[in-house]
Amino acid sequence: MPEPILLDDPDDPRLAPYRAMRERDLVGRQGRFIVEGEVTLRLLFSEGARFRAESVLLAPERWPGLAPFFQEDGPQEDGPQEDGPPVYLAGRDVMSAVTGFPVHRGVLAVGLRGPEPQPDALIPPAPAPALVLGLVGLTNHDNVGGLFRNAAAFGADAVLLDAATCDPLYRKAIRVSAGAALTVPFARAASGIALLDLAERHALIPLALTPGGGEALETLEPPPRALLLLGTEGPGLPEAVMDRARRVRIAMAPGFDSLNVATSGAIALHRLAGERLGRA
Amino acid sequence: MPEPILLDDPDDPRLAPYRAMRERDLVGRQGRFIVEGEVTLRLLFSEGARFRAESVLLAPERWPGLAPFFQEDGPQEDGPQEDGPPVYLAGRDVMSAVTGFPVHRGVLAVGLRGPEPQPDALIPPAPAPALVLGLVGLTNHDNVGGLFRNAAAFGADAVLLDAATCDPLYRKAIRVSAGAALTVPFARAASGIALLDLAERHALIPLALTPGGGEALETLEPPPRALLLLGTEGPGLPEAVMDRARRVRIAMAPGFDSLNVATSGAIALHRLAGERLGRA
Repeated sequence: MPEPILLDDPDDPRLAPYRAMRERDLVGRQGRFIVEGEVTLRLLFSEGARFRAESVLLAPERWPGLAPFFQEDGPQEDGPQEDGPPVYLAGRDVMSAVTGFPVHRGVLAVGLRGPEPQPDALIPPAPAPALVLGLVGLTNHDNVGGLFRNAAAFGADAVLLDAATCDPLYRKAIRVSAGAALTVPFARAASGIALLDLAERHALIPLALTPGGGEALETLEPPPRALLLLGTEGPGLPEAVMDRARRVRIAMAPGFDSLNVATSGAIALHRLAGERLGRA
Repeated sequence: MPEPILLDDPDDPRLAPYRAMRERDLVGRQGRFIVEGEVTLRLLFSEGARFRAESVLLAPERWPGLAPFFQEDGPQEDGPQEDGPPVYLAGRDVMSAVTGFPVHRGVLAVGLRGPEPQPDALIPPAPAPALVLGLVGLTNHDNVGGLFRNAAAFGADAVLLDAATCDPLYRKAIRVSAGAALTVPFARAASGIALLDLAERHALIPLALTPGGGEALETLEPPPRALLLLGTEGPGLPEAVMDRARRVRIAMAPGFDSLNVATSGAIALHRLAGERLGRA
Protein backbone atom coordinates (compact mmCIF):
# COMPACT_ATOMS: atom_id res chain seq x y z
CA MET A 1 0.00 0.00 0.00
CA PRO A 2 1.42 3.41 -0.85
CA GLU A 3 1.96 5.55 2.23
CA PRO A 4 -0.24 8.67 1.85
CA ILE A 5 1.63 11.96 1.90
CA LEU A 6 0.17 14.82 3.93
CA LEU A 7 0.47 18.20 2.19
CA ASP A 8 -0.45 21.41 3.97
CA ASP A 9 1.02 24.10 1.72
CA PRO A 10 -1.27 25.18 -1.13
CA ASP A 11 1.84 26.22 -3.04
CA ASP A 12 3.38 22.75 -2.92
CA PRO A 13 4.53 22.01 -6.49
CA ARG A 14 3.09 18.49 -6.28
CA LEU A 15 -0.36 20.14 -6.24
CA ALA A 16 0.31 22.09 -9.45
CA PRO A 17 -1.89 19.90 -11.69
CA TYR A 18 -4.87 20.58 -9.36
CA ARG A 19 -4.45 24.35 -9.42
CA ALA A 20 -7.11 26.84 -10.66
CA MET A 21 -9.26 24.02 -11.90
CA ARG A 22 -12.01 25.98 -13.64
CA GLU A 23 -9.60 28.21 -15.53
CA ARG A 24 -7.58 25.18 -16.58
CA ASP A 25 -10.74 23.49 -17.85
CA LEU A 26 -10.72 26.13 -20.55
CA VAL A 27 -7.08 26.15 -21.57
CA GLY A 28 -6.36 22.43 -21.30
CA ARG A 29 -3.95 20.46 -19.16
CA GLN A 30 -1.09 19.29 -21.41
CA GLY A 31 -1.78 15.60 -21.49
CA ARG A 32 -3.58 15.41 -18.15
CA PHE A 33 -7.20 15.29 -17.01
CA ILE A 34 -9.04 15.57 -13.69
CA VAL A 35 -11.18 12.90 -12.07
CA GLU A 36 -13.64 13.85 -9.30
CA GLY A 37 -15.49 11.73 -6.78
CA GLU A 38 -15.25 8.17 -5.54
CA VAL A 39 -17.23 6.39 -8.26
CA THR A 40 -15.06 7.87 -10.98
CA LEU A 41 -11.84 7.32 -9.02
CA ARG A 42 -12.65 3.63 -8.72
CA LEU A 43 -13.15 3.44 -12.50
CA LEU A 44 -9.79 5.14 -13.07
CA PHE A 45 -8.18 2.26 -11.19
CA SER A 46 -10.41 -0.49 -12.54
CA GLU A 47 -9.27 -3.25 -14.83
CA GLY A 48 -11.16 -1.67 -17.70
CA ALA A 49 -9.55 1.76 -17.32
CA ARG A 50 -7.67 3.03 -20.35
CA PHE A 51 -5.58 5.61 -18.52
CA ARG A 52 -2.98 5.78 -15.77
CA ALA A 53 -3.31 8.01 -12.72
CA GLU A 54 -0.50 10.46 -12.06
CA SER A 55 -1.58 11.23 -8.49
CA VAL A 56 -4.56 11.10 -6.13
CA LEU A 57 -5.62 13.93 -3.80
CA LEU A 58 -7.93 13.15 -0.89
CA ALA A 59 -9.34 14.99 2.09
CA PRO A 60 -7.75 13.17 5.08
CA GLU A 61 -11.13 11.92 6.35
CA ARG A 62 -11.67 10.11 3.03
CA TRP A 63 -8.50 8.05 3.45
CA PRO A 64 -9.76 5.40 5.93
CA GLY A 65 -12.71 4.57 3.68
CA LEU A 66 -10.60 4.40 0.53
CA ALA A 67 -7.41 2.87 1.97
CA PRO A 68 -8.53 -0.76 1.42
CA PHE A 69 -8.93 0.08 -2.25
CA PHE A 70 -5.26 1.09 -2.33
CA GLN A 71 -4.03 -2.04 -0.56
CA GLU A 72 -2.26 -4.62 -2.64
CA ASP A 73 -4.16 -7.40 -0.91
CA GLY A 74 -7.32 -5.32 -0.45
CA PRO A 75 -10.80 -6.12 -1.66
CA GLN A 76 -10.09 -4.48 -5.03
CA GLU A 77 -7.53 -6.70 -6.69
CA ASP A 78 -7.20 -4.24 -9.50
CA GLY A 79 -6.49 -1.27 -7.22
CA PRO A 80 -3.21 0.61 -7.49
CA GLN A 81 -0.16 -1.37 -6.37
CA GLU A 82 2.93 -0.56 -4.35
CA ASP A 83 4.44 1.20 -7.32
CA GLY A 84 1.21 3.08 -8.02
CA PRO A 85 0.80 6.85 -8.11
CA PRO A 86 1.32 8.89 -4.94
CA VAL A 87 -1.72 9.56 -2.76
CA TYR A 88 -1.72 13.08 -1.30
CA LEU A 89 -3.86 14.07 1.66
CA ALA A 90 -4.80 17.74 2.12
CA GLY A 91 -7.38 19.45 4.29
CA ARG A 92 -10.43 20.86 2.55
CA ASP A 93 -9.14 24.40 3.10
CA VAL A 94 -5.94 23.52 1.22
CA MET A 95 -7.86 21.68 -1.49
CA SER A 96 -10.17 24.66 -1.97
CA ALA A 97 -7.28 27.14 -2.00
CA VAL A 98 -5.54 25.08 -4.70
CA THR A 99 -8.52 24.27 -6.92
CA GLY A 100 -10.30 27.59 -6.47
CA PHE A 101 -13.65 26.21 -5.32
CA PRO A 102 -15.02 24.07 -2.46
CA VAL A 103 -14.26 20.41 -3.16
CA HIS A 104 -17.27 18.89 -1.42
CA ARG A 105 -16.49 15.26 -2.07
CA GLY A 106 -12.83 15.55 -1.11
CA VAL A 107 -11.76 13.09 -3.83
CA LEU A 108 -9.66 14.16 -6.82
CA ALA A 109 -7.11 12.55 -9.09
CA VAL A 110 -5.01 13.50 -12.09
CA GLY A 111 -4.98 11.10 -15.02
CA LEU A 112 -2.52 10.91 -17.91
CA ARG A 113 -3.95 10.85 -21.42
CA GLY A 114 -1.13 8.92 -23.01
CA PRO A 115 -1.02 8.52 -26.78
CA GLU A 116 -4.44 8.58 -28.48
CA PRO A 117 -5.27 5.36 -30.34
CA GLN A 118 -6.01 5.23 -34.05
CA PRO A 119 -9.71 4.68 -34.80
CA ASP A 120 -8.94 1.61 -36.94
CA ALA A 121 -7.41 -0.07 -33.90
CA LEU A 122 -10.63 0.19 -31.88
CA ILE A 123 -13.02 -1.50 -34.29
CA PRO A 124 -13.41 -5.26 -33.70
CA PRO A 125 -12.20 -7.03 -36.87
CA ALA A 126 -14.87 -8.49 -39.17
CA PRO A 127 -16.71 -10.77 -39.09
CA ALA A 128 -17.09 -10.44 -35.29
CA PRO A 129 -20.11 -8.42 -34.14
CA ALA A 130 -19.37 -4.73 -33.65
CA LEU A 131 -21.30 -1.76 -32.31
CA VAL A 132 -19.51 1.57 -32.71
CA LEU A 133 -20.87 5.03 -31.91
CA GLY A 134 -19.88 7.95 -34.17
CA LEU A 135 -20.33 11.53 -32.91
CA VAL A 136 -20.37 14.39 -35.41
CA GLY A 137 -20.16 18.00 -34.22
CA LEU A 138 -21.32 17.42 -30.64
CA THR A 139 -19.96 20.36 -28.66
CA ASN A 140 -21.95 19.96 -25.43
CA HIS A 141 -20.09 18.20 -22.62
CA ASP A 142 -23.30 16.98 -20.98
CA ASN A 143 -24.36 15.26 -24.18
CA VAL A 144 -20.96 13.72 -24.87
CA GLY A 145 -20.63 12.57 -21.26
CA GLY A 146 -24.16 11.14 -21.33
CA LEU A 147 -23.41 9.28 -24.56
CA PHE A 148 -20.33 7.64 -23.07
CA ARG A 149 -22.45 6.52 -20.12
CA ASN A 150 -24.98 5.05 -22.54
CA ALA A 151 -22.27 3.46 -24.69
CA ALA A 152 -20.94 1.70 -21.58
CA ALA A 153 -24.42 0.65 -20.44
CA PHE A 154 -25.15 -1.02 -23.77
CA GLY A 155 -21.69 -2.45 -24.36
CA ALA A 156 -20.62 -0.41 -27.40
CA ASP A 157 -17.11 -1.36 -28.53
CA ALA A 158 -15.86 2.17 -29.14
CA VAL A 159 -16.83 5.81 -29.64
CA LEU A 160 -15.38 7.65 -32.62
CA LEU A 161 -15.38 11.47 -32.61
CA ASP A 162 -15.10 13.92 -35.46
CA ALA A 163 -12.75 16.88 -35.01
CA ALA A 164 -15.57 19.22 -33.88
CA THR A 165 -16.87 17.01 -31.08
CA CYS A 166 -15.74 18.11 -27.64
CA ASP A 167 -13.29 16.32 -25.36
CA PRO A 168 -14.67 13.30 -23.43
CA LEU A 169 -11.93 13.86 -20.83
CA TYR A 170 -13.14 17.37 -20.04
CA ARG A 171 -13.86 17.45 -16.30
CA LYS A 172 -17.63 17.77 -16.61
CA ALA A 173 -17.89 15.20 -19.41
CA ILE A 174 -16.14 12.58 -17.23
CA ARG A 175 -18.49 13.37 -14.35
CA VAL A 176 -21.65 13.15 -16.46
CA SER A 177 -20.38 9.92 -18.03
CA ALA A 178 -20.28 8.39 -14.53
CA GLY A 179 -16.67 7.55 -15.39
CA ALA A 180 -17.47 5.72 -18.63
CA ALA A 181 -15.20 8.17 -20.51
CA LEU A 182 -12.33 6.41 -18.70
CA THR A 183 -13.30 2.92 -19.82
CA VAL A 184 -15.03 3.08 -23.23
CA PRO A 185 -12.32 3.27 -25.94
CA PHE A 186 -12.48 6.38 -28.09
CA ALA A 187 -10.50 7.95 -30.91
CA ARG A 188 -10.69 10.90 -33.29
CA ALA A 189 -11.31 10.97 -37.01
CA ALA A 190 -11.09 14.13 -39.08
CA SER A 191 -14.77 14.41 -40.00
CA GLY A 192 -18.10 12.67 -40.44
CA ILE A 193 -16.93 11.63 -43.91
CA ALA A 194 -13.79 10.09 -42.40
CA LEU A 195 -16.07 8.09 -40.08
CA LEU A 196 -17.93 6.74 -43.12
CA ASP A 197 -14.63 5.77 -44.75
CA LEU A 198 -13.76 3.86 -41.58
CA ALA A 199 -17.13 2.13 -41.68
CA GLU A 200 -16.54 1.08 -45.27
CA ARG A 201 -13.05 -0.19 -44.52
CA HIS A 202 -14.29 -2.27 -41.58
CA ALA A 203 -17.59 -3.52 -43.03
CA LEU A 204 -19.71 -1.57 -40.54
CA ILE A 205 -23.23 -0.60 -41.67
CA PRO A 206 -23.54 3.17 -41.12
CA LEU A 207 -26.84 4.19 -39.52
CA ALA A 208 -27.67 7.91 -39.33
CA LEU A 209 -30.17 8.74 -36.59
CA THR A 210 -32.45 11.54 -37.79
CA PRO A 211 -36.11 12.55 -37.21
CA GLY A 212 -36.68 12.38 -40.98
CA GLY A 213 -35.25 8.86 -41.36
CA GLY A 214 -36.99 6.53 -43.81
CA GLU A 215 -36.42 3.41 -41.70
CA ALA A 216 -38.02 2.96 -38.29
CA LEU A 217 -35.63 1.96 -35.51
CA GLU A 218 -38.41 -0.14 -34.02
CA THR A 219 -38.67 -2.50 -37.00
CA LEU A 220 -35.03 -2.38 -38.08
CA GLU A 221 -33.19 -5.70 -37.99
CA PRO A 222 -30.04 -4.71 -36.06
CA PRO A 223 -27.02 -5.27 -38.35
CA PRO A 224 -24.37 -7.42 -36.64
CA ARG A 225 -21.78 -4.75 -37.43
CA ALA A 226 -23.04 -1.17 -37.11
CA LEU A 227 -21.74 2.38 -36.85
CA LEU A 228 -24.44 4.55 -35.20
CA LEU A 229 -23.98 8.18 -36.24
CA LEU A 230 -25.35 11.07 -34.15
CA GLY A 231 -25.32 14.81 -34.90
CA THR A 232 -26.30 17.93 -32.98
CA GLU A 233 -29.90 18.48 -31.87
CA GLY A 234 -30.49 21.55 -34.00
CA PRO A 235 -28.94 21.11 -37.44
CA GLY A 236 -28.46 17.34 -37.13
CA LEU A 237 -26.02 15.32 -39.21
CA PRO A 238 -24.60 16.91 -42.38
CA GLU A 239 -26.47 15.85 -45.54
CA ALA A 240 -23.22 14.57 -47.06
CA VAL A 241 -22.90 12.15 -44.15
CA MET A 242 -26.54 11.03 -44.24
CA ASP A 243 -26.31 10.45 -47.99
CA ARG A 244 -23.87 7.64 -47.41
CA ALA A 245 -25.76 6.04 -44.49
CA ARG A 246 -29.10 4.37 -43.82
CA ARG A 247 -31.35 7.03 -42.28
CA VAL A 248 -33.14 5.76 -39.19
CA ARG A 249 -35.84 7.51 -37.13
CA ILE A 250 -37.24 6.96 -33.65
CA ALA A 251 -41.06 6.93 -33.58
CA MET A 252 -42.43 9.90 -31.62
CA ALA A 253 -45.73 11.51 -30.77
CA PRO A 254 -46.98 13.92 -33.44
CA GLY A 255 -46.07 17.56 -32.87
CA PHE A 256 -43.11 16.96 -30.55
CA ASP A 257 -40.19 15.42 -32.42
CA SER A 258 -37.65 16.60 -29.91
CA LEU A 259 -35.44 14.31 -27.88
CA ASN A 260 -32.11 15.10 -26.31
CA VAL A 261 -29.31 13.64 -28.47
CA ALA A 262 -27.91 11.52 -25.61
CA THR A 263 -31.40 10.15 -25.02
CA SER A 264 -31.93 9.34 -28.71
CA GLY A 265 -28.54 7.66 -28.71
CA ALA A 266 -29.51 5.55 -25.68
CA ILE A 267 -32.71 4.36 -27.34
CA ALA A 268 -30.87 3.44 -30.54
CA LEU A 269 -27.95 1.75 -28.73
CA HIS A 270 -30.41 -0.22 -26.62
CA ARG A 271 -32.11 -1.47 -29.78
CA LEU A 272 -28.90 -2.16 -31.72
CA ALA A 273 -27.16 -3.91 -28.82
CA GLY A 274 -29.92 -6.51 -29.01
CA GLU A 275 -28.45 -9.96 -28.62
CA ARG A 276 -25.17 -8.59 -27.27
CA LEU A 277 -26.96 -8.04 -23.97
CA GLY A 278 -28.03 -11.66 -23.83
CA ARG A 279 -31.68 -11.07 -24.61
CA ALA A 280 -34.00 -12.35 -27.31
CA MET B 1 -52.19 42.59 -31.81
CA PRO B 2 -51.25 43.96 -28.39
CA GLU B 3 -49.22 47.15 -28.59
CA PRO B 4 -45.85 46.45 -26.91
CA ILE B 5 -45.04 48.70 -23.97
CA LEU B 6 -41.53 50.08 -23.68
CA LEU B 7 -40.16 50.06 -20.13
CA ASP B 8 -36.89 51.75 -19.28
CA ASP B 9 -36.97 51.91 -15.48
CA PRO B 10 -35.66 48.78 -13.74
CA ASP B 11 -37.81 49.73 -10.76
CA ASP B 12 -41.02 49.71 -12.76
CA PRO B 13 -43.52 47.69 -10.68
CA ARG B 14 -44.69 45.85 -13.81
CA LEU B 15 -41.26 44.19 -13.84
CA ALA B 16 -41.57 42.95 -10.25
CA PRO B 17 -42.24 39.29 -11.18
CA TYR B 18 -38.95 39.26 -13.17
CA ARG B 19 -36.86 40.64 -10.32
CA ALA B 20 -33.85 38.84 -8.72
CA MET B 21 -34.60 35.72 -10.68
CA ARG B 22 -32.04 33.33 -9.18
CA GLU B 23 -32.91 34.21 -5.60
CA ARG B 24 -36.61 33.83 -6.39
CA ASP B 25 -35.95 30.39 -7.89
CA LEU B 26 -35.19 29.30 -4.35
CA VAL B 27 -38.05 30.92 -2.45
CA GLY B 28 -40.82 30.42 -4.99
CA ARG B 29 -43.01 32.85 -6.87
CA GLN B 30 -46.49 32.73 -5.33
CA GLY B 31 -48.38 31.10 -8.13
CA ARG B 32 -46.12 32.26 -10.94
CA PHE B 33 -43.32 30.72 -13.00
CA ILE B 34 -40.72 31.99 -15.47
CA VAL B 35 -40.40 30.96 -19.10
CA GLU B 36 -37.14 31.64 -20.99
CA GLY B 37 -36.36 31.57 -24.69
CA GLU B 38 -38.36 31.53 -27.87
CA VAL B 39 -39.06 27.79 -28.15
CA THR B 40 -40.55 27.69 -24.67
CA LEU B 41 -42.45 30.97 -25.16
CA ARG B 42 -44.15 29.53 -28.22
CA LEU B 43 -45.21 26.49 -26.21
CA LEU B 44 -46.65 28.75 -23.49
CA PHE B 45 -48.96 30.21 -26.14
CA SER B 46 -49.61 26.97 -28.00
CA GLU B 47 -52.95 25.25 -28.14
CA GLY B 48 -51.61 22.48 -25.92
CA ALA B 49 -50.41 24.84 -23.17
CA ARG B 50 -51.95 24.27 -19.76
CA PHE B 51 -51.12 27.72 -18.34
CA ARG B 52 -51.87 31.37 -19.01
CA ALA B 53 -49.16 33.99 -19.44
CA GLU B 54 -49.33 37.01 -17.16
CA SER B 55 -46.86 39.07 -19.19
CA VAL B 56 -44.08 38.81 -21.76
CA LEU B 57 -40.74 40.66 -21.56
CA LEU B 58 -38.63 41.01 -24.70
CA ALA B 59 -35.46 42.78 -25.73
CA PRO B 60 -36.68 45.33 -28.32
CA GLU B 61 -34.72 43.70 -31.15
CA ARG B 62 -36.64 40.45 -30.56
CA TRP B 63 -40.01 42.12 -31.18
CA PRO B 64 -39.96 42.26 -35.01
CA GLY B 65 -39.25 38.54 -35.23
CA LEU B 66 -41.88 37.60 -32.67
CA ALA B 67 -44.58 40.17 -33.52
CA PRO B 68 -46.29 37.96 -36.15
CA PHE B 69 -46.76 35.37 -33.45
CA PHE B 70 -48.68 37.92 -31.39
CA GLN B 71 -50.93 39.01 -34.26
CA GLU B 72 -54.50 37.87 -34.22
CA ASP B 73 -54.31 36.99 -37.87
CA GLY B 74 -50.67 36.00 -37.79
CA PRO B 75 -49.19 32.70 -38.84
CA GLN B 76 -49.83 31.24 -35.38
CA GLU B 77 -53.60 31.06 -35.05
CA ASP B 78 -53.21 30.03 -31.46
CA GLY B 79 -50.99 32.97 -30.52
CA PRO B 80 -52.12 35.47 -27.90
CA GLN B 81 -55.10 37.56 -28.90
CA GLU B 82 -56.06 41.22 -28.52
CA ASP B 83 -57.01 40.62 -24.90
CA GLY B 84 -53.81 38.66 -24.28
CA PRO B 85 -51.16 39.51 -21.70
CA PRO B 86 -49.12 42.71 -22.02
CA VAL B 87 -45.85 42.54 -23.96
CA TYR B 88 -43.11 44.64 -22.37
CA LEU B 89 -39.98 45.69 -24.23
CA ALA B 90 -36.85 46.54 -22.25
CA GLY B 91 -33.20 46.95 -23.25
CA ARG B 92 -30.84 44.21 -22.22
CA ASP B 93 -29.28 46.50 -19.61
CA VAL B 94 -32.69 46.96 -17.99
CA MET B 95 -33.47 43.24 -18.26
CA SER B 96 -30.14 42.36 -16.67
CA ALA B 97 -30.57 44.94 -13.90
CA VAL B 98 -34.01 43.51 -13.10
CA THR B 99 -33.25 39.79 -13.32
CA GLY B 100 -29.75 40.00 -11.86
CA PHE B 101 -27.91 38.25 -14.71
CA PRO B 102 -27.33 38.74 -18.45
CA VAL B 103 -30.43 37.61 -20.35
CA HIS B 104 -28.72 36.44 -23.53
CA ARG B 105 -31.78 35.35 -25.42
CA GLY B 106 -33.80 38.45 -24.57
CA VAL B 107 -37.04 36.47 -24.26
CA LEU B 108 -38.85 36.01 -20.93
CA ALA B 109 -42.42 35.54 -19.80
CA VAL B 110 -44.28 35.06 -16.54
CA GLY B 111 -46.85 32.26 -16.43
CA LEU B 112 -49.64 31.72 -13.92
CA ARG B 113 -49.89 28.32 -12.29
CA GLY B 114 -53.62 28.40 -11.68
CA PRO B 115 -55.24 25.67 -9.60
CA GLU B 116 -53.43 22.32 -9.70
CA PRO B 117 -55.55 19.48 -11.11
CA GLN B 118 -56.39 16.34 -9.17
CA PRO B 119 -54.45 13.29 -10.37
CA ASP B 120 -57.67 11.33 -10.95
CA ALA B 121 -58.76 13.92 -13.50
CA LEU B 122 -55.67 13.38 -15.67
CA ILE B 123 -55.93 9.62 -16.18
CA PRO B 124 -57.85 8.64 -19.33
CA PRO B 125 -60.92 6.63 -18.21
CA ALA B 126 -60.80 2.85 -18.72
CA PRO B 127 -60.93 1.02 -21.04
CA ALA B 128 -59.17 3.57 -23.27
CA PRO B 129 -55.41 3.08 -23.61
CA ALA B 130 -53.39 5.04 -21.05
CA LEU B 131 -49.71 5.68 -20.44
CA VAL B 132 -48.96 7.56 -17.23
CA LEU B 133 -45.54 8.32 -15.75
CA GLY B 134 -45.15 8.28 -11.94
CA LEU B 135 -42.12 9.96 -10.36
CA VAL B 136 -41.12 9.07 -6.80
CA GLY B 137 -38.56 11.14 -4.90
CA LEU B 138 -36.90 12.76 -7.94
CA THR B 139 -35.29 15.93 -6.62
CA ASN B 140 -33.05 16.81 -9.57
CA HIS B 141 -34.50 19.45 -11.92
CA ASP B 142 -32.50 18.18 -14.90
CA ASN B 143 -33.95 14.72 -14.50
CA VAL B 144 -37.52 15.92 -13.98
CA GLY B 145 -37.25 18.33 -16.93
CA GLY B 146 -35.75 15.58 -19.10
CA LEU B 147 -38.55 13.19 -18.17
CA PHE B 148 -41.21 15.73 -19.19
CA ARG B 149 -39.46 16.10 -22.54
CA ASN B 150 -39.46 12.32 -22.95
CA ALA B 151 -43.10 12.05 -21.82
CA ALA B 152 -44.07 14.54 -24.53
CA ALA B 153 -41.94 12.81 -27.17
CA PHE B 154 -43.65 9.47 -26.54
CA GLY B 155 -47.14 10.83 -25.98
CA ALA B 156 -47.63 10.00 -22.30
CA ASP B 157 -51.04 11.14 -21.06
CA ALA B 158 -49.86 12.59 -17.76
CA VAL B 159 -47.05 12.75 -15.21
CA LEU B 160 -47.91 12.14 -11.56
CA LEU B 161 -45.47 13.32 -8.88
CA ASP B 162 -45.09 12.24 -5.29
CA ALA B 163 -44.66 14.96 -2.65
CA ALA B 164 -40.84 14.69 -2.66
CA THR B 165 -40.39 15.15 -6.42
CA CYS B 166 -39.29 18.64 -7.39
CA ASP B 167 -41.32 21.27 -9.21
CA PRO B 168 -41.62 20.82 -13.01
CA LEU B 169 -42.27 24.57 -13.27
CA TYR B 170 -38.93 25.45 -11.71
CA ARG B 171 -37.10 27.64 -14.21
CA LYS B 172 -34.40 25.13 -15.09
CA ALA B 173 -36.83 22.20 -15.27
CA ILE B 174 -38.95 24.04 -17.86
CA ARG B 175 -35.84 24.82 -19.89
CA VAL B 176 -34.52 21.25 -19.83
CA SER B 177 -38.00 19.95 -20.69
CA ALA B 178 -37.84 22.01 -23.92
CA GLY B 179 -41.16 23.46 -22.75
CA ALA B 180 -42.89 20.09 -22.30
CA ALA B 181 -43.54 20.97 -18.63
CA LEU B 182 -46.02 23.53 -20.00
CA THR B 183 -47.94 21.04 -22.11
CA VAL B 184 -47.83 17.58 -20.49
CA PRO B 185 -50.51 17.46 -17.75
CA PHE B 186 -49.16 16.79 -14.26
CA ALA B 187 -50.49 16.55 -10.73
CA ARG B 188 -49.30 15.66 -7.24
CA ALA B 189 -50.11 12.66 -5.10
CA ALA B 190 -48.97 12.31 -1.51
CA SER B 191 -46.57 9.40 -2.02
CA GLY B 192 -45.53 6.44 -4.11
CA ILE B 193 -48.18 4.41 -2.32
CA ALA B 194 -50.81 7.00 -3.26
CA LEU B 195 -49.71 6.57 -6.89
CA LEU B 196 -50.33 2.82 -6.59
CA ASP B 197 -53.78 3.48 -5.13
CA LEU B 198 -54.51 5.68 -8.14
CA ALA B 199 -53.31 2.93 -10.48
CA GLU B 200 -55.62 0.44 -8.78
CA ARG B 201 -58.59 2.80 -8.94
CA HIS B 202 -58.05 3.44 -12.65
CA ALA B 203 -57.07 -0.06 -13.75
CA LEU B 204 -53.50 0.92 -14.67
CA ILE B 205 -50.85 -1.81 -14.48
CA PRO B 206 -48.05 -0.44 -12.27
CA LEU B 207 -44.56 -1.12 -13.68
CA ALA B 208 -41.56 -0.36 -11.46
CA LEU B 209 -38.38 0.25 -13.43
CA THR B 210 -35.43 -1.19 -11.49
CA PRO B 211 -32.06 -2.80 -12.40
CA GLY B 212 -33.08 -5.88 -10.39
CA GLY B 213 -36.43 -6.32 -12.13
CA GLY B 214 -37.56 -9.89 -12.86
CA GLU B 215 -39.22 -8.99 -16.17
CA ALA B 216 -37.21 -7.76 -19.15
CA LEU B 217 -38.54 -4.59 -20.75
CA GLU B 218 -37.47 -5.94 -24.13
CA THR B 219 -39.81 -8.93 -24.04
CA LEU B 220 -42.63 -7.34 -22.02
CA GLU B 221 -45.97 -7.15 -23.80
CA PRO B 222 -46.84 -3.46 -23.21
CA PRO B 223 -50.06 -3.32 -21.14
CA PRO B 224 -52.67 -1.10 -22.79
CA ARG B 225 -53.03 0.84 -19.54
CA ALA B 226 -49.77 1.37 -17.65
CA LEU B 227 -48.32 3.47 -14.85
CA LEU B 228 -44.52 3.57 -15.27
CA LEU B 229 -42.87 4.26 -11.90
CA LEU B 230 -39.38 5.75 -11.63
CA GLY B 231 -37.28 6.41 -8.51
CA THR B 232 -33.95 8.09 -7.83
CA GLU B 233 -30.74 6.75 -9.36
CA GLY B 234 -29.11 5.82 -6.08
CA PRO B 235 -31.65 4.26 -3.72
CA GLY B 236 -34.26 3.61 -6.42
CA LEU B 237 -37.96 3.08 -5.73
CA PRO B 238 -39.01 2.24 -2.16
CA GLU B 239 -39.48 -1.50 -1.60
CA ALA B 240 -43.06 -0.91 -0.45
CA VAL B 241 -43.82 0.60 -3.86
CA MET B 242 -42.04 -2.12 -5.84
CA ASP B 243 -43.87 -4.81 -3.83
CA ARG B 244 -47.15 -3.71 -5.35
CA ALA B 245 -45.84 -3.35 -8.92
CA ARG B 246 -44.38 -5.53 -11.66
CA ARG B 247 -40.59 -5.06 -11.51
CA VAL B 248 -39.11 -4.42 -14.94
CA ARG B 249 -35.43 -4.13 -15.89
CA ILE B 250 -33.62 -2.74 -18.92
CA ALA B 251 -30.98 -5.14 -20.30
CA MET B 252 -27.49 -3.70 -19.90
CA ALA B 253 -23.89 -4.72 -20.42
CA PRO B 254 -22.40 -6.66 -17.49
CA GLY B 255 -20.52 -4.55 -14.97
CA PHE B 256 -22.13 -1.22 -15.81
CA ASP B 257 -25.76 -1.16 -14.72
CA SER B 258 -25.92 2.61 -14.57
CA LEU B 259 -28.21 4.74 -16.70
CA ASN B 260 -29.46 8.23 -15.98
CA VAL B 261 -33.06 8.04 -14.71
CA ALA B 262 -34.39 10.29 -17.48
CA THR B 263 -32.65 8.06 -20.03
CA SER B 264 -34.07 4.87 -18.49
CA GLY B 265 -37.48 6.51 -18.51
CA ALA B 266 -37.12 7.38 -22.20
CA ILE B 267 -36.24 3.79 -23.13
CA ALA B 268 -39.19 2.44 -21.16
CA LEU B 269 -41.67 5.04 -22.47
CA HIS B 270 -40.50 4.36 -26.02
CA ARG B 271 -41.20 0.67 -25.53
CA LEU B 272 -44.53 1.13 -23.71
CA ALA B 273 -45.85 3.74 -26.13
CA GLY B 274 -45.63 1.04 -28.80
CA GLU B 275 -48.72 1.17 -30.96
CA ARG B 276 -49.67 4.64 -29.73
CA LEU B 277 -46.95 6.00 -31.99
CA GLY B 278 -48.44 4.28 -34.98
CA ARG B 279 -45.82 1.62 -35.33
CA ALA B 280 -45.92 -2.14 -35.36
